[in-house]
Amino acid sequence: MTTLEPEYQNLIEAGKQDLKGDAVGAALEEIALKALEFLREKCKRVKLFSKVPGKDYFAFTPKDGKGELSRPVNKALFDARVTKKQLQTIFGKGIVKVDQDLLARLLYSLAISYCAATDLTKKDDKKTPGTFFEVLVGHLVSRAFGTNPQKEIKIPTLDIENKLPTDYVFDLGQGKNRIHLPVKISTRERIVQVWAHQRILDAMHGVNRFTGILICLTETNKQKDSSVIEVCLPGQWAAYQMYIGQLRRVYYLDVPEKYKPLVESYPFIQVKSFASFFREIDRLTKASPLA
Amino acid sequence: MTTLEPEYQNLIEAGKQDLKGDAVGAALEEIALKALEFLREKCKRVKLFSKVPGKDYFAFTPKDGKGELSRPVNKALFDARVTKKQLQTIFGKGIVKVDQDLLARLLYSLAISYCAATDLTKKDDKKTPGTFFEVLVGHLVSRAFGTNPQKEIKIPTLDIENKLPTDYVFDLGQGKNRIHLPVKISTRERIVQVWAHQRILDAMHGVNRFTGILICLTETNKQKDSSVIEVCLPGQWAAYQMYIGQLRRVYYLDVPEKYKPLVESYPFIQVKSFASFFREIDRLTKASPLA
Repeated sequence: MTTLEPEYQNLIEAGKQDLKGDAVGAALEEIALKALEFLREKCKRVKLFSKVPGKDYFAFTPKDGKGELSRPVNKALFDARVTKKQLQTIFGKGIVKVDQDLLARLLYSLAISYCAATDLTKKDDKKTPGTFFEVLVGHLVSRAFGTNPQKEIKIPTLDIENKLPTDYVFDLGQGKNRIHLPVKISTRERIVQVWAHQRILDAMHGVNRFTGILICLTETNKQKDSSVIEVCLPGQWAAYQMYIGQLRRVYYLDVPEKYKPLVESYPFIQVKSFASFFREIDRLTKASPLA
Repeated sequence: MTTLEPEYQNLIEAGKQDLKGDAVGAALEEIALKALEFLREKCKRVKLFSKVPGKDYFAFTPKDGKGELSRPVNKALFDARVTKKQLQTIFGKGIVKVDQDLLARLLYSLAISYCAATDLTKKDDKKTPGTFFEVLVGHLVSRAFGTNPQKEIKIPTLDIENKLPTDYVFDLGQGKNRIHLPVKISTRERIVQVWAHQRILDAMHGVNRFTGILICLTETNKQKDSSVIEVCLPGQWAAYQMYIGQLRRVYYLDVPEKYKPLVESYPFIQVKSFASFFREIDRLTKASPLA
């Protein structure tokens, strides 16, 4: 029985020590290559009926299994033959030079590798794929920013000591904006939390003190009949962006079709491929987003 | 095998027709009396180790079962011998005259009856207890307000048609405040949604246009060792109340110990027993809460 447990523990430990450190990149490389090998060698692909226009999805199933299916995998974005050398371009400084389409495939293949393999090797494990994805994104973003994040903020009040657990927050130092960077495998109805936390930061510290950047893997959902849909709530997102707080960017590794038009009409939520993040860091971290 | 399925379907159907109508009261009475009879006749009590100071909890287990346990039941608030006549005082106009301690016990016994019975008759059913509790509270509140609620609001914008699904919202007519009334079995970390929806209503329609009233059953949690704790996040609630929106009241059927002190220090969140709601409706529905 294949298990990725030792590699996963190794990754978590490295992330706790120094999220932006080389050891995390090495651990991500190790776990992804092992997961991809498992998917390549021990599994086969099952085509899923995609209800998402323009996108094909398949699932993995163990060759010797009882027909269990992994989560949906985007055919165009997945490459089971990602090499060690390719992964090293992601973890090095050259990431900004990698072709955008290739980078999108490398990032997606890396992220989905552990998740799909875990679907088949560890029954009902929803927690470790989420944590894996958070460490993966946290590592890449920390390297890009050159600093590690925190995961709670103090709430300054006149006479009360209080603190709030948050997603990642980055202090980039003098002359730069701070970053509020939640990371989610998928969003569903809970996502209002992200806007609510942005609102708390804005209300506590002033609007435009923290730049909100949400990073998600996908919104795919495998239905009981094995068809694939994307669960999207564009109308609710618009209401959150208008009335709760303003996220500056929402990046996906597999951008949902129904969120693509959000950028074109008010309130103009900027939904993009995560691959494009690395080329616009200077713009996102400027002291004033209105400059 | 006892099942409450027909009574449950009957209740849901009646609620859809007219939430404040007599048929809903009759259906609630029927389902509660049957659930209580099941708990009284077919089950026995197992004492749980309560880690909540000043509160005793037990669980029900079927006399002929394999030791399955229901959710925790508050010993002081539960009365398995609630009578039809007593329940009829709740559903009639006399509810405001019922002694507060007795009313608290009647409301709690009614609410927990179906939930505890369902824990033992329908494995892993988390949905119907939530819906049952929503209909129970919705019925009592609709009768008290004299009008039925809606469950979505239109989002008025310059050029976009949009709507947002919400918990109950009540329009009490000219000269009275509108009411935003979420109902939850328990809150946990998702509860930020309630403050976020209050914020959207305030931002869309103006502060103090909708009075926010949250109604919850309990925050008890049965641990793996069968001890009982209350899961409370008072610091986070304070941050939500300070920076996202202001709820006017939070009512519980089993008020958590850690939320009781919230009323005593800034931001003075008003957490109370649901029994007291019926006596302060005039104050809560006045056109201006600041008057």
